[in-house]
Amino acid sequence: MSHRYSVILSNVGSSADRFLTTGYSTPFTIPELFARVKQIPQVTGVELIGNWHVTERNVKEIKQHLEENELKLVSIIPDHFGQMKWKNGSFAAKDPSIRMEAVVHTKEMIDAAIELGGDLISLWPGQDGYDYLFQADYIQERDWFAEGVKEACLYRDDVKISLEYKVKEPRTHSYLSTVATSLLITQEIGTDNVGVTIDFGHALNAYETPAESVALLKKYGNKLFHVHMNDNFRHWDDDMIVGSIHTIETLEFFYWLKRTEYKGWLSIDQYPYREDGLEAVREGVNAMEAFAELVDCIPSGELDGLIRNGNAPEITAYLRKLLLPVR
Amino acid sequence: MSHRYSVILSNVGSSADRFLTTGYSTPFTIPELFARVKQIPQVTGVELIGNWHVTERNVKEIKQHLEENELKLVSIIPDHFGQMKWKNGSFAAKDPSIRMEAVVHTKEMIDAAIELGGDLISLWPGQDGYDYLFQADYIQERDWFAEGVKEACLYRDDVKISLEYKVKEPRTHSYLSTVATSLLITQEIGTDNVGVTIDFGHALNAYETPAESVALLKKYGNKLFHVHMNDNFRHWDDDMIVGSIHTIETLEFFYWLKRTEYKGWLSIDQYPYREDGLEAVREGVNAMEAFAELVDCIPSGELDGLIRNGNAPEITAYLRKLLLPVR
Amino acid sequence: MSHRYSVILSNVGSSADRFLTTGYSTPFTIPELFARVKQIPQVTGVELIGNWHVTERNVKEIKQHLEENELKLVSIIPDHFGQMKWKNGSFAAKDPSIRMEAVVHTKEMIDAAIELGGDLISLWPGQDGYDYLFQADYIQERDWFAEGVKEACLYRDDVKISLEYKVKEPRTHSYLSTVATSLLITQEIGTDNVGVTIDFGHALNAYETPAESVALLKKYGNKLFHVHMNDNFRHWDDDMIVGSIHTIETLEFFYWLKRTEYKGWLSIDQYPYREDGLEAVREGVNAMEAFAELVDCIPSGELDGLIRNGNAPEITAYLRKLLLPVR
Amino acid sequence: MSHRYSVILSNVGSSADRFLTTGYSTPFTIPELFARVKQIPQVTGVELIGNWHVTERNVKEIKQHLEENELKLVSIIPDHFGQMKWKNGSFAAKDPSIRMEAVVHTKEMIDAAIELGGDLISLWPGQDGYDYLFQADYIQERDWFAEGVKEACLYRDDVKISLEYKVKEPRTHSYLSTVATSLLITQEIGTDNVGVTIDFGHALNAYETPAESVALLKKYGNKLFHVHMNDNFRHWDDDMIVGSIHTIETLEFFYWLKRTEYKGWLSIDQYPYREDGLEAVREGVNAMEAFAELVDCIPSGELDGLIRNGNAPEITAYLRKLLLPVR
Repeated sequence: MSHRYSVILSNVGSSADRFLTTGYSTPFTIPELFARVKQIPQVTGVELIGNWHVTERNVKEIKQHLEENELKLVSIIPDHFGQMKWKNGSFAAKDPSIRMEAVVHTKEMIDAAIELGGDLISLWPGQDGYDYLFQADYIQERDWFAEGVKEACLYRDDVKISLEYKVKEPRTHSYLSTVATSLLITQEIGTDNVGVTIDFGHALNAYETPAESVALLKKYGNKLFHVHMNDNFRHWDDDMIVGSIHTIETLEFFYWLKRTEYKGWLSIDQYPYREDGLEAVREGVNAMEAFAELVDCIPSGELDGLIRNGNAPEITAYLRKLLLPVR
Repeated sequence: MSHRYSVILSNVGSSADRFLTTGYSTPFTIPELFARVKQIPQVTGVELIGNWHVTERNVKEIKQHLEENELKLVSIIPDHFGQMKWKNGSFAAKDPSIRMEAVVHTKEMIDAAIELGGDLISLWPGQDGYDYLFQADYIQERDWFAEGVKEACLYRDDVKISLEYKVKEPRTHSYLSTVATSLLITQEIGTDNVGVTIDFGHALNAYETPAESVALLKKYGNKLFHVHMNDNFRHWDDDMIVGSIHTIETLEFFYWLKRTEYKGWLSIDQYPYREDGLEAVREGVNAMEAFAELVDCIPSGELDGLIRNGNAPEITAYLRKLLLPVR
Repeated sequence: MSHRYSVILSNVGSSADRFLTTGYSTPFTIPELFARVKQIPQVTGVELIGNWHVTERNVKEIKQHLEENELKLVSIIPDHFGQMKWKNGSFAAKDPSIRMEAVVHTKEMIDAAIELGGDLISLWPGQDGYDYLFQADYIQERDWFAEGVKEACLYRDDVKISLEYKVKEPRTHSYLSTVATSLLITQEIGTDNVGVTIDFGHALNAYETPAESVALLKKYGNKLFHVHMNDNFRHWDDDMIVGSIHTIETLEFFYWLKRTEYKGWLSIDQYPYREDGLEAVREGVNAMEAFAELVDCIPSGELDGLIRNGNAPEITAYLRKLLLPVR
Repeated sequence: MSHRYSVILSNVGSSADRFLTTGYSTPFTIPELFARVKQIPQVTGVELIGNWHVTERNVKEIKQHLEENELKLVSIIPDHFGQMKWKNGSFAAKDPSIRMEAVVHTKEMIDAAIELGGDLISLWPGQDGYDYLFQADYIQERDWFAEGVKEACLYRDDVKISLEYKVKEPRTHSYLSTVATSLLITQEIGTDNVGVTIDFGHALNAYETPAESVALLKKYGNKLFHVHMNDNFRHWDDDMIVGSIHTIETLEFFYWLKRTEYKGWLSIDQYPYREDGLEAVREGVNAMEAFAELVDCIPSGELDGLIRNGNAPEITAYLRKLLLPVR
């Protein structure tokens, strides 16, 4: 199965956290970031973040970067998280003018995406949720959330809106928390162009088995629109290099991508705090390729057979021989 | 708001775990268990477990116990977890004859419930799920699951079937894992008599805010059919005494029960490994009553106002004055 | 029991995270931060962070702020986390020159503390640890860690060095991870002036019962030197307002502080991303005061009695009557 | 490096949990269990559990089983968890007569071990801890715990007492919770014959990196006396087949066993609820052998080099090529 690989532009750059807000290494300019992406041969597309990378005013400039570096625009991630005004939410904010701004900005990014040859918006409404108990009207705010996203979906039916769920951070509790919550919301919105982004690490954080999340989206309407890849230690969104921790979960994930005939992009979403971003992405992509190749070279039906039998010692023996062959 | 309180019959008895399978105290007979429940004045109903308490053959006997102790049958929890045959699942088992047995047993328990004056089945398909990666066909098995439960729902439309979700245990991963997964399944089944049981502790285990789980069930079809109460340390289903750990979560839960006009039973579901079961249930019920009374005596609109503003220091100050008044 | 309350200076200001690195509200100048602290009547001391607030060059200026606002210097937290040079560790860094800098900076901060009338360094070596598997020589790096901290301890025996543990963040794994690890390290260092800071939330993150952490430090050498207060949802260092989530854990913590005769400061360590920092600290201090008062007004021996019996229904009933009295 | 492999006798049998207390498959007699162990060629030793397998009265019988099946006694795990009398603790119980019984039973098992040719007691005081807040005198009970274990250690200095830590279950909080807590207790006891058992899964449950736990025990007194192997999903002691989830953690663990020159046994400690116990153990042992062989066949110094550099993309690339070579 041949996949298309991409990366969120900022991933090849410098990352910050709350203790070192100016970043763990020297920042790169946008042209430099594009040039760095270009150095990874398998990567043919890029995801851009609203405000961080693309605004209403720099679309032409961005177009030129894409062309010069022969990169496709995979998606735009509108900025619903990185400005002070979103601090109490975007689509689900208590303030109606903020809710309106969330929709307006999304529409602007839809326009920008079209102009840049893209057809996908990856929506991450990270500020929609709550921190404290007794802080939120869970029904009203979820209604607002679905209404706002629906308005964005109705704006252009030729652009897909893909919802990226995450159980927490930056809020202690997000509204778009799990794959199942996301499906409820896509059903509530009800348009064909709304779907879901699986971030591999976010799935782990929610105690999901990422392969099962792929299956759930297949089962309930074929709604897997986009994939973000990384890894973590389960408890937090560590955004580490693909395959660095969960060998078998990652393998099973790639197997289910193939089994469900996923046709979208596989995009790196790592936060290389202490690593060189370019090297971390390069390895992340190499890892994705290795997992995809391994799935392809397993004789047809062997994994299906394991699943059909469900016999744990047999499964474990098979995987052991696959990953730790006698040398 | 006046609630109806009940208890799962075995809760007043002795509990076992995998290290002490014969139980942490001397077992009680079924008549003794009924007599113990009778000693808790606020408790007017009881939940029975299939096989453990009620079978096709002892319905009359059970009826007599209910009458003698002036207890209503709140629900039957069919046994889909406590026999060897369910070890690889019940409704979602790979073996079609087991799947059939799961439905048959449910129908028997529906019949028994009707005979005992009940109208609720609380379904806990704890063995439906998987333990290992590459062990399950997540789509096929979830299809089977919904089909089987649907067949039970169609059997009698005057009996409610309430699905109790739990993220894990006894499997490392359950199919009926979270409130949102449960809602997807109720939508898939599509009958009016299918709904959801919130077990307070299971909600915590899934990193849900229990009050928000109540709200979600209200929002998506008014599907809260039943409540199991207990408490835990978030990471595992410790099944502790109500209110023993999460004071504010429990308060917010009772507030949202009132706000959404929940009319069902509040049932104790504790596992008193080292406690006297009767004393643990007595205190659990006292706690439920105290939380309900506190919600009732808060001047109308105060909590609504906190939620509308969403101001954390204001919320926290309010709760502090409520729980830790200057003495 | 009368406690002394303090706050980390930046807590009354604006907070940033990795998605909004410029902060969730407009930043305050250092004089403004001092003026804000001054507005909280119970707060009589302040903790300062190296580089962020205090450097070798601004000690006189800081002294003036302290005096003008009638605040004591409670501690300095040297900066071992907020500059690019620490990205691979401070005391345990693989680079020997960085390890040396970690010690040098600590000594400078010891000098500054003395000049400012303080006698406590609260050390948070947040970058000492690792992110990936196979990334660290766990023995060698822990040896370096203890050697470096010991050198700082030996510099001035009239200044206490208090080690603040945290299981993760910013690294996926910290060396100074839990209360027990901290005790091993204090024993390894072996000086009288080395001790441990409990951050209430960090204890919860490590699945510690905070009251038990107090007890452990009492048992193994009376090593509780300092306390940071906040709250969270157990899984992450959410740095929320004191008492906002864990009512009973906080009460038990204050009880054990009294029982073990803790004499140090109680310092707020919150991260008010979306709250007004001043209001959040004000409420955090009010909460600390309320918990301390509640412990004081419980008739002597009642809690001791509960603990001696260890009877869960009795304990839970007692706490229910305390927190949710019949109104 | 050649390892010695063993198994806890009950692992090849039937397992129960709290929902199916009579077990997920038909129980085996003790002779049958021995005969099953015998079928796994690499296994040359066995661990026995007090009461479950060995009592004061059946030592001769057990001796015969060992001889007939050519198995060594690796250790006895005294029963401090599987009888009603231990329900409120063993060495740390509030009742002094129970504390005495805990010591007496340990001494009996020491005698039995010697008679059976063993020199190791693997102590798992699973009931020592607490469930509820305000339930325990953390100082007093930990004092009792250390005193009791010390008395057992002093009984025979030619028998090693190895403490197996676990953060929770069956109590919500154990006293012997983490590797660092265990080290504090070994230091408190102070005899040469007291050490620590790492259970791989228990280390994961405590958010330890198992390889780091090995290193910590090396650093603080060379205290790794015994190893129990299994795997889990981090959050709970799922007791799954070795290597079934954490490929890289297991590899790093075996590398550090070699690096620290561990000479003890590697013992399977799995709970095969739904698997055939014999097949699950067979595969667990095959997995251990495969990991040990892989560590041995990596050119000397390569892993040391990765650790010395600590460069994450380089480490991840190396592991990818090792586990997912281009085919």
